[in-house]
Amino acid sequence: MSTSKRHRITLLHGASYVGGEIIRLLLRHPRAGLTSVTSRTFAGEPVWKAHPALREQTGLTFSEHAQDVGDADALLIAAEHGRSAQILPPLLEGGFEGAVVDLTADFRYEDPALYDEWFDYEHPAPELLGRFQYGLPEVHAPYPDEARWIANPGCFATGLALALHPLAANTASLDASVTALTGASGSGATPKAATHYPTRDGNVRAYKVMAHQHLPEVEQVLGDSANVTFAPASGPWTRGIWGTAHVRLPGEAGAKTVADWYDDAYTEGACVRLSPGALPEMRASVDTPFCDVGWQTQGDRLVVGFALDNLLKGAASQAVQNMNLVLGLPETAGLVPPGERAFAESAARNERREEAFS
Amino acid sequence: MSTSKRHRITLLHGASYVGGEIIRLLLRHPRAGLTSVTSRTFAGEPVWKAHPALREQTGLTFSEHAQDVGDADALLIAAEHGRSAQILPPLLEGGFEGAVVDLTADFRYEDPALYDEWFDYEHPAPELLGRFQYGLPEVHAPYPDEARWIANPGCFATGLALALHPLAANTASLDASVTALTGASGSGATPKAATHYPTRDGNVRAYKVMAHQHLPEVEQVLGDSANVTFAPASGPWTRGIWGTAHVRLPGEAGAKTVADWYDDAYTEGACVRLSPGALPEMRASVDTPFCDVGWQTQGDRLVVGFALDNLLKGAASQAVQNMNLVLGLPETAGLVPPGERAFAESAARNERREEAFS
Amino acid sequence: MSTSKRHRITLLHGASYVGGEIIRLLLRHPRAGLTSVTSRTFAGEPVWKAHPALREQTGLTFSEHAQDVGDADALLIAAEHGRSAQILPPLLEGGFEGAVVDLTADFRYEDPALYDEWFDYEHPAPELLGRFQYGLPEVHAPYPDEARWIANPGCFATGLALALHPLAANTASLDASVTALTGASGSGATPKAATHYPTRDGNVRAYKVMAHQHLPEVEQVLGDSANVTFAPASGPWTRGIWGTAHVRLPGEAGAKTVADWYDDAYTEGACVRLSPGALPEMRASVDTPFCDVGWQTQGDRLVVGFALDNLLKGAASQAVQNMNLVLGLPETAGLVPPGERAFAESAARNERREEAFS
Amino acid sequence: MSTSKRHRITLLHGASYVGGEIIRLLLRHPRAGLTSVTSRTFAGEPVWKAHPALREQTGLTFSEHAQDVGDADALLIAAEHGRSAQILPPLLEGGFEGAVVDLTADFRYEDPALYDEWFDYEHPAPELLGRFQYGLPEVHAPYPDEARWIANPGCFATGLALALHPLAANTASLDASVTALTGASGSGATPKAATHYPTRDGNVRAYKVMAHQHLPEVEQVLGDSANVTFAPASGPWTRGIWGTAHVRLPGEAGAKTVADWYDDAYTEGACVRLSPGALPEMRASVDTPFCDVGWQTQGDRLVVGFALDNLLKGAASQAVQNMNLVLGLPETAGLVPPGERAFAESAARNERREEAFS
Repeated sequence: MSTSKRHRITLLHGASYVGGEIIRLLLRHPRAGLTSVTSRTFAGEPVWKAHPALREQTGLTFSEHAQDVGDADALLIAAEHGRSAQILPPLLEGGFEGAVVDLTADFRYEDPALYDEWFDYEHPAPELLGRFQYGLPEVHAPYPDEARWIANPGCFATGLALALHPLAANTASLDASVTALTGASGSGATPKAATHYPTRDGNVRAYKVMAHQHLPEVEQVLGDSANVTFAPASGPWTRGIWGTAHVRLPGEAGAKTVADWYDDAYTEGACVRLSPGALPEMRASVDTPFCDVGWQTQGDRLVVGFALDNLLKGAASQAVQNMNLVLGLPETAGLVPPGERAFAESAARNERREEAFS
Repeated sequence: MSTSKRHRITLLHGASYVGGEIIRLLLRHPRAGLTSVTSRTFAGEPVWKAHPALREQTGLTFSEHAQDVGDADALLIAAEHGRSAQILPPLLEGGFEGAVVDLTADFRYEDPALYDEWFDYEHPAPELLGRFQYGLPEVHAPYPDEARWIANPGCFATGLALALHPLAANTASLDASVTALTGASGSGATPKAATHYPTRDGNVRAYKVMAHQHLPEVEQVLGDSANVTFAPASGPWTRGIWGTAHVRLPGEAGAKTVADWYDDAYTEGACVRLSPGALPEMRASVDTPFCDVGWQTQGDRLVVGFALDNLLKGAASQAVQNMNLVLGLPETAGLVPPGERAFAESAARNERREEAFS
Repeated sequence: MSTSKRHRITLLHGASYVGGEIIRLLLRHPRAGLTSVTSRTFAGEPVWKAHPALREQTGLTFSEHAQDVGDADALLIAAEHGRSAQILPPLLEGGFEGAVVDLTADFRYEDPALYDEWFDYEHPAPELLGRFQYGLPEVHAPYPDEARWIANPGCFATGLALALHPLAANTASLDASVTALTGASGSGATPKAATHYPTRDGNVRAYKVMAHQHLPEVEQVLGDSANVTFAPASGPWTRGIWGTAHVRLPGEAGAKTVADWYDDAYTEGACVRLSPGALPEMRASVDTPFCDVGWQTQGDRLVVGFALDNLLKGAASQAVQNMNLVLGLPETAGLVPPGERAFAESAARNERREEAFS
Repeated sequence: MSTSKRHRITLLHGASYVGGEIIRLLLRHPRAGLTSVTSRTFAGEPVWKAHPALREQTGLTFSEHAQDVGDADALLIAAEHGRSAQILPPLLEGGFEGAVVDLTADFRYEDPALYDEWFDYEHPAPELLGRFQYGLPEVHAPYPDEARWIANPGCFATGLALALHPLAANTASLDASVTALTGASGSGATPKAATHYPTRDGNVRAYKVMAHQHLPEVEQVLGDSANVTFAPASGPWTRGIWGTAHVRLPGEAGAKTVADWYDDAYTEGACVRLSPGALPEMRASVDTPFCDVGWQTQGDRLVVGFALDNLLKGAASQAVQNMNLVLGLPETAGLVPPGERAFAESAARNERREEAFS
């Protein structure tokens, strides 16, 4: 491995929470390394000023503008929504030929009209929408060869889509009632009322009920036959998303059928862990690159649970996973201990089957 | 008020969390006072040994057995499930004539067969089931004159029933998908795996999905036309329940119809606070005797939210509310500042209407 | 009681966390009631808009300016520091003759030069400093008859002063090393970096080490012979202060001497609870009007612990306690269940002695 | 690196929290790998049954007894205190020749009499005490060549010793007043009263004041001239230790002298991060292998702060650091991103100096 090429990565807007996780992951990535990280707020400062845990773990310094971005094999963008659509056109004009993993929402919707509807702005670069591949790896990979620009999914969207995709793919119509809660890191590093400690501590609060901007992402993944009612909420913790989806099964489907749908959908699913017969707990997914999906049935009633780390599978590790895919690296390089995954996966899969149907 | 009779109350099993809340409430109750509190574990010890915050707030001492229970105007039982069914028959035989508010599950189901099914035991005193009134005051009060023994509802049951009762009462059939989370105090004062701090912190975990023993309570309140799928979960906080119910409305019902159903159902609802157009946050209900219920509609889709303090409206304050009712006291005596409620209620109700339909 | 006069109270700046607690306490106060509450931000709104838990518990509405302040028996000020010194001079000129309990720092220091030094401003109304009584009731009460304006102590200052006063009063010189942690509500209701949930959760952070503005308050209470090194810190909770003071005892003093010092100092201490031989835990003091003080000795080494609710004994309940004192009401009216305190206190005191020296 | 020998590691009692962290660290260690992990409770189960986050990250299974322990290059023991002294004698008799890193307290004290005094038992294998090197790497490394059995320090002991060692080494006598708080994971995976969520949430509680068993460890490191008063406490979080030490400086020492002491002591300190002029916050140390130490002075008063992850630098990562040292590997292999540390360290050191003295 040490003789292999080490890919050069540039990270834009690396002072965000998600940026900090990308840096942390890339510091131990076997095949890729950060050569440049930008932040306007922290320009000229060492990376640990924004991410104190990284002190004495890296000598990297934030720069105001990406340095030598032309030489980067991949560009990761962890900016606020709306920034990528401003950043990318001039980069392209400047001849940038590398891969892009964009963590903003700017290129997630295929239909430009949705930006008007959900973000209340006219998309400034609709001509680039077609260049982007919406990238939920367990659903969309392998990507077409020409797909080198990836729109990295939203955190809630990742959870809902992974939980519901096997159902949507196997039923004529899907009607799902979803309630999901997210931690305070999902709101970013800027203090606001919803993340004020006395307000958040010991509290759960719904927001954007049936109006969250990740909903069109989910419906884009699931297709027209899916109908999702989504009640998002915030909970008193820093990292993690946990949710349930209530679904009525078509008459013929039973517990075993459902298990087959999930197994078939995620046979190759690098970062989905399945648990038939049990909803996943949130904590086991936190600080991991996995989305955990489990379910229980009773007659025609199905409750699916999902859990993921909003900063990792919901953002940073999924971006690295996508980066690995477009650079031709092993999908979970830098995310899952090498050599362990293949064995663990098949063992776990066998065990799940035995547990669920014995 | 000072010339009015002060009712004598006996509390059995007062060392539990719920017991502590009952003691705290009764210490400032204007018309009732504790004359005896029992605990086997703390017998002979001052009450603050079990409830440290009450130190120097009361001179009460736990006794092993209820003293002079025959003189009590009301008996409150905060024991573990199964204990009341053992305690009450000999008391009755001994001639006890006072009122009873039982916080255990022992007399909540009208059908004795349900105890077999849900608690896996044969009910030891089925002959007493008929003497008990299941008491969710906002649904069942005023109680019949002869109802002096009240089965105090479970905490989840209180939230689900109050959220869904106006819908069940006004629709031919109700199909609700409920997800609700509760705090660690709901598991009681004995350490267990699910309440171990490192396990609970930053975690959400489902349990008893479609199998929680409060479900038959809810269905008993709502009637046969209701079909509730319930995914209960535990969250990382000490006090509070927060939940959502997803429902499809019948074609003719719109936002205003739903608001009318709730307003009509709870015109006299002493401890329900309604918020049309917004799901309630959990924290505002904690440390109050209220269950907050709010909802949002979109076409035929309805999401109802509910929030309550599992130790208060889910147990202790509801027990005091029931005690007030059976003793003929003002329903919210000792729970809501006197004189304020009537004014506040009507003002709030008017304001809600204006907000929701302006 | 119902025939007694009910005192009329005006609260300025009632939208703060401390303001909310004062409202909550006065709603159930037997002898005093709020007639007016101000807030510029919430002017015209019902009180529950700022304090959601109070919904349907009071019909009070915020006004921009105090109404009929001239008729108030007492004025409580829960404003930001610096506001009282602006508010009071015109009120006085307008002929206001009521009592004042000021929760800001504006009149806590006797020496006006300290405002320059610690708050970096020239005091705008130094002529009023002499009218104020610094009011830590357990140390300074009974107040002189003419003292009707009370400077309510700071939250940390209350804990440190109550923990150290018996030592300073009984030793020629006191050298104390204090570390104390406070919850996020101490920073107020406005979101800021230090109270951003992801920053605060699972974190402890020191601030203003040997430079906290409560230090001169403490030294003013303890006198010139006291030398306090104070390391304040913030912890991951909403309410509560917990701290330790390390002290070397003079040669002749042993465990019993120290216990006598504390007992003698607080014989009449309405809201101090003592525990010789054990440092208090924080949670038992939260949601109570008490400061808990306990200690352990080993040879000449003494560690004193203290705990209090920063919003109550550190602010709101202490203000009500001071209000009671200047209005001639029972000191703990509205704070401790009536009739219980006298019994509980003497019982607890005897018990403490027995435990500590048996 | 890939051609280098990969060391074979056996972990005893790997189901504990500390065991889980060791497994996690070794899964990505470049030069060492786990070949066997034991647990009596989980024998025959996959590792993720005890450590759910590791699901599909390793195929390892717990065994009841160590397999092929004779072939292990190093043995790590994460058992309860008292177990190592039972485990090691038969292993030695069986001819085991590998290295040992023992995370229990069994071989930390040089003086066997201390086991009587602090743990209330007669040491069962005092003849082995002399074979163990107490291993706080930043103080004791490089170890003598013959030292292949390491007693890994306690979590509090690590923090206190690293914070105070430079002072003890440079002053004739040291008198330190320490208050330190730890998270709930320090109490292990078994539920108990002190880690019951409702008890721990929003609470701080002192325990073993001036009587904690890590005190003799600290005094063993610091030497006879040190006198430490230690008030340990538990706080409402899962991971992390945060503490302060109050010290009086000898007359001649000023801020610069103190900074020199610390810099000189930790020039080679692999896992200590220094911050002159500022006490460290806890969170930045959590999930890192570092102990952070910072301080502030005012005249002759010095307050030193320290922070570390009790499961990592307080246990698992320090064990891996010690394992690296006795196996001749780079000290921070598997703990700090390779290649980054040298640069980061010198840059950080220069920057610290500039900040503190400019």
